[in-house]
Amino acid sequence: MVTPKRVKVGILGASGYSGIEAVRILARHPMIELTLLTSEHYTGREVADVYRHLARLDLPPFEELRADLISSRAEAVLSCLPEGVGAEAVAELYRDGVKVVDLAADYRLRDPAVYHDTYAADHPAPHLLKEAVYGLTEFHRHELREARLVANPGCYPTGALLALLPLIRKDLVDPGTIVIDAKSGTTGARRSPSIEQLFAEVNENFRPYKVATHRHTPEIEQEIGAVLGREVAVLFVPHLLPVSRGILSSIFARPRSGVAEDDIRAAFAASYSKAPFVRLLKPGELPELRAVRGTNFCEIAFVLDRRSQNLCVMTAIDNLGKGAAGQAVQNLNLMLGLDETAALLGPAVVP
Amino acid sequence: MVTPKRVKVGILGASGYSGIEAVRILARHPMIELTLLTSEHYTGREVADVYRHLARLDLPPFEELRADLISSRAEAVLSCLPEGVGAEAVAELYRDGVKVVDLAADYRLRDPAVYHDTYAADHPAPHLLKEAVYGLTEFHRHELREARLVANPGCYPTGALLALLPLIRKDLVDPGTIVIDAKSGTTGARRSPSIEQLFAEVNENFRPYKVATHRHTPEIEQEIGAVLGREVAVLFVPHLLPVSRGILSSIFARPRSGVAEDDIRAAFAASYSKAPFVRLLKPGELPELRAVRGTNFCEIAFVLDRRSQNLCVMTAIDNLGKGAAGQAVQNLNLMLGLDETAALLGPAVVP
Amino acid sequence: MVTPKRVKVGILGASGYSGIEAVRILARHPMIELTLLTSEHYTGREVADVYRHLARLDLPPFEELRADLISSRAEAVLSCLPEGVGAEAVAELYRDGVKVVDLAADYRLRDPAVYHDTYAADHPAPHLLKEAVYGLTEFHRHELREARLVANPGCYPTGALLALLPLIRKDLVDPGTIVIDAKSGTTGARRSPSIEQLFAEVNENFRPYKVATHRHTPEIEQEIGAVLGREVAVLFVPHLLPVSRGILSSIFARPRSGVAEDDIRAAFAASYSKAPFVRLLKPGELPELRAVRGTNFCEIAFVLDRRSQNLCVMTAIDNLGKGAAGQAVQNLNLMLGLDETAALLGPAVVP
Amino acid sequence: MVTPKRVKVGILGASGYSGIEAVRILARHPMIELTLLTSEHYTGREVADVYRHLARLDLPPFEELRADLISSRAEAVLSCLPEGVGAEAVAELYRDGVKVVDLAADYRLRDPAVYHDTYAADHPAPHLLKEAVYGLTEFHRHELREARLVANPGCYPTGALLALLPLIRKDLVDPGTIVIDAKSGTTGARRSPSIEQLFAEVNENFRPYKVATHRHTPEIEQEIGAVLGREVAVLFVPHLLPVSRGILSSIFARPRSGVAEDDIRAAFAASYSKAPFVRLLKPGELPELRAVRGTNFCEIAFVLDRRSQNLCVMTAIDNLGKGAAGQAVQNLNLMLGLDETAALLGPAVVP
Repeated sequence: MVTPKRVKVGILGASGYSGIEAVRILARHPMIELTLLTSEHYTGREVADVYRHLARLDLPPFEELRADLISSRAEAVLSCLPEGVGAEAVAELYRDGVKVVDLAADYRLRDPAVYHDTYAADHPAPHLLKEAVYGLTEFHRHELREARLVANPGCYPTGALLALLPLIRKDLVDPGTIVIDAKSGTTGARRSPSIEQLFAEVNENFRPYKVATHRHTPEIEQEIGAVLGREVAVLFVPHLLPVSRGILSSIFARPRSGVAEDDIRAAFAASYSKAPFVRLLKPGELPELRAVRGTNFCEIAFVLDRRSQNLCVMTAIDNLGKGAAGQAVQNLNLMLGLDETAALLGPAVVP
Repeated sequence: MVTPKRVKVGILGASGYSGIEAVRILARHPMIELTLLTSEHYTGREVADVYRHLARLDLPPFEELRADLISSRAEAVLSCLPEGVGAEAVAELYRDGVKVVDLAADYRLRDPAVYHDTYAADHPAPHLLKEAVYGLTEFHRHELREARLVANPGCYPTGALLALLPLIRKDLVDPGTIVIDAKSGTTGARRSPSIEQLFAEVNENFRPYKVATHRHTPEIEQEIGAVLGREVAVLFVPHLLPVSRGILSSIFARPRSGVAEDDIRAAFAASYSKAPFVRLLKPGELPELRAVRGTNFCEIAFVLDRRSQNLCVMTAIDNLGKGAAGQAVQNLNLMLGLDETAALLGPAVVP
Repeated sequence: MVTPKRVKVGILGASGYSGIEAVRILARHPMIELTLLTSEHYTGREVADVYRHLARLDLPPFEELRADLISSRAEAVLSCLPEGVGAEAVAELYRDGVKVVDLAADYRLRDPAVYHDTYAADHPAPHLLKEAVYGLTEFHRHELREARLVANPGCYPTGALLALLPLIRKDLVDPGTIVIDAKSGTTGARRSPSIEQLFAEVNENFRPYKVATHRHTPEIEQEIGAVLGREVAVLFVPHLLPVSRGILSSIFARPRSGVAEDDIRAAFAASYSKAPFVRLLKPGELPELRAVRGTNFCEIAFVLDRRSQNLCVMTAIDNLGKGAAGQAVQNLNLMLGLDETAALLGPAVVP
Repeated sequence: MVTPKRVKVGILGASGYSGIEAVRILARHPMIELTLLTSEHYTGREVADVYRHLARLDLPPFEELRADLISSRAEAVLSCLPEGVGAEAVAELYRDGVKVVDLAADYRLRDPAVYHDTYAADHPAPHLLKEAVYGLTEFHRHELREARLVANPGCYPTGALLALLPLIRKDLVDPGTIVIDAKSGTTGARRSPSIEQLFAEVNENFRPYKVATHRHTPEIEQEIGAVLGREVAVLFVPHLLPVSRGILSSIFARPRSGVAEDDIRAAFAASYSKAPFVRLLKPGELPELRAVRGTNFCEIAFVLDRRSQNLCVMTAIDNLGKGAAGQAVQNLNLMLGLDETAALLGPAVVP
């Protein structure tokens, strides 16, 4: 049997939370070889000296980022650099013909003006905003197969949009009534020194933050609006959970008159019946973080409450999995013509 | 200086989570003497042998519940017996002239039919349902001073109603649009053997439960309806947090046309400007569990989102404090003609 | 290419913490097919209905235990039944020619008298005690290849003995001075209803228990004594950590006169240089739970403190991995003539 | 009744973990008035704007540290400034006649050479090292009543010495065999930005650190040596627990020949029978963190293991309570001629 040649892939910003999760996933990918890992903080160090759980995996060391040299080292790249930091490198890689999945927010918003309003900066490569494919895999699978630049969705938008887009597509809810109450583990924030993310500040605590002002709001609205064909405003309320990983979103909307449970179930089935990573739960089951932790899966359930005439859809994802590195690998698989599920089917560790 | 005689008070079901919290609070109350503690599970044992944090507090031992003998031992009683278990004992105490604060749900619903629908049982003393004062202190302070039987509110209803009643009173929101997304620590459930409450089942997890079917829903609707003068249906979605104590509720409703931030702030001020345990936060501040843990305080903040035309009100309480034993002591203080705040002003331990 | 036939394996008591971890591991084993899962509690239910993280893995349903029928369904069995409960079933399987790895304590102690003293019961099959191979893989690899009955080590003994046996073998420490201070996550206890394992009882707490009286003490002493050739008494002090998984053991002993760091390092290398699951850390590195969580790895480090003339050896394992299901699969692999590491090399999920 | 004038007290470094705990305790002290709170980070801000759990307590705002002006504002000071930072200010206050309890390590070591070896710096006021009273209250109560400068013990030394000094005093153990295995919550480290203290780095993890090299070792050895009358070396192994507060220490030593349980119990009784904050547990009881969290109490138990000829003594304290701010207030009470227990008797909040 001839072993097919593995694709050379690099990870930029490989030592942060989403970066190292991407390393963990790709280290055992049957068709990919990790050839390049960059880290500003740990340049020159072996991965296993910093992250012992990745010992014995035959990984390249962390090295400095040299965007101009990447095309000779990797055919494709996951960029886990922070917002703003990686935008120019990504543009350079695109120009050099390297396929890129960008896990930062830089290429998600298609309108440079919205980008400016949201991130208080001019976009360094506005011409690429229309080139980038929004990497919510289940809704852009065909474009992703041809994509050269993928804007990997934010963690919160992934949890919210997987609940909402099937309903919007079928016009089952009033888009003007959408409320997203989301709760995230702490690795949604960067792995950098911080007082408010100290253990003793987060432990035994729970709190909302950036209510109605979080930067993921325009991203959510853009994608709903794209399906809807017009602008929409939603209320997005994030909270910080005392867990390391996971986002549970409870999403509320008023159903259109006459909508029944079967309509909703059919809408989800239409979007996800062939989706390998979306688990539409049975009636009576409800999502929970632990069932998806460390995986690329999304759990979805809904309750149609006739008394209050409200629909509640709930999703659970791992913010580092389907919310970041997992979905990035899923998209990379598609871009490279590989099996969409390669390296992504390991079950969660419970408890 | 003559020391005034202290009031003799008993606690029924004193060894559960809310019971032992009531012991902790009352053990240092300047005007109350704990004369009776009952516990089915620990009958005959000293409190400090079971709960060492209560060592050296000169407490009576746990003993068996004998409802007929209580009136000779205590002038007032907090009943922390479980739903259904304590209803008859409470009725007997009422008959014997003992003042009672019942922390269970038995006397909260005024309509026996709603009680039957909610708890799948006939009420053992339906004639008392109209006698009981609903103990949401901030809204029933005058009746509580005269009350002989207080139905202490549920933990979730406390967090929700403190947010909603001021707005309903002033007709600032459309009651038909209310959604309550609440997150509770694990002591909201009873201290009894259980698999689903095991550490390894709750830790690093987060999940909704009883979506739109939780038994606290009719209680919330009853109290809103009482202010509104008509029936209302709300959507109530509880979640289980991996923390021991605390409830954070995010409550959504559509504001009436033209309602401004100042109107909302004024409504809260009208209800709470003299309330010693409600902290209306400043603009920019948001509630968090740790600020109220171990206390009888409630934090409230709101965000009026003009873009989506939604109002989000957030409250934080300790489910064992303002959500149970704390509010029970607050009500007891009023019933006994004592300072409403006695024994309740200690600050939270942070972190 | 011809796919080799997979070995049919059953798991008894498959729905408890170690049982379901064994399911998780074996569900993706390339050479094993899970053909039988028993569970008293969940008889008749699909695995994925109880444990959603194991959805889509093509598993048999939970069924009742019928020991007499197993030999027709499985060539080998992991028994995760509790202490005492499974001993007779294991004896029956042995008689029927089914290879068994018993994760309970029933076949670990070779002396029926010690078993009786420790477990306050007569052993139901004392003739098998000498047949069973003690499954601390790194020290019994050759016997395990021929074994028909393996007594899988206790979680605490695994963490302690991996630290101690290399030193005892080379006579580097005084066996009369051994102290084992061990800290375990909560899944060391069974998944059964319990007050003391409730989240609110364990969370934000830490405590020793069964100091010098834990049932794993004779097991540890037996294995040290077997290497030493004489009886030994050690002090074993377990503690309960507020984490779901993992055991960190700090083990103290007085080094023999003249023993140097190099001697100790050489002793560990002699025992583990070819061991795929033991990571002897570099000087300056110290074990931590997260590096091994969800895996079959053991981390070991030591500090020789000349000032106090003490040696401290520290090990980290996952109590459900190398401390239970992981090591059981490692042993099963050997018994079945498979690659020792099959299905066991996935890295930990960090954080 | 004439209310006695309250003593004016200041807290330096009042916004860190031990500082704010001192604020919490003293805010409700019946005989002390907080007149000065300094904080470099929060200069100019109201306490309740930073720490909402301290709302409504009538506290002065955080201000800049001006050591030369303190004597006009406060009769006594708790210095919660970090190691090294506060040493000169403390010396200046001493000179100005302000009574000081220093919670940092600067005045704990009596030998400037040991200080230099431990902290890699020359002591800025070596002449004061002999003036400072070591504030392990139970062993220096008489000197503390006269003290002008108290070196408040480290958190780990407090937990270790309360176990060991009674035994050393009575010569019940061989001091050459002492091993201290201690486990601390995260607030043992400073409240400052840090990656290794991030929630996701500590949560679900447990690890030893600074094995045999922690700076508290010389402090422990100094105090044992002072009782013993000669130098001693102990092995001290700290670990980081995923809890916010608390230190559980398990301390091992070989008992002198013939020592019985009664001897040990008598030794502890001799040291602590009148100590209001030390709880010697009954046989069968073992210390746990939650019983002391948020308090100044220390729980002690021991197990004499005849099989292995080892003694294990276990203590539990709150590292911010008896391990820092609690003990500092206890010492301050003595220095000011107040009731030793004032403001310190509130029970722990459990769970």
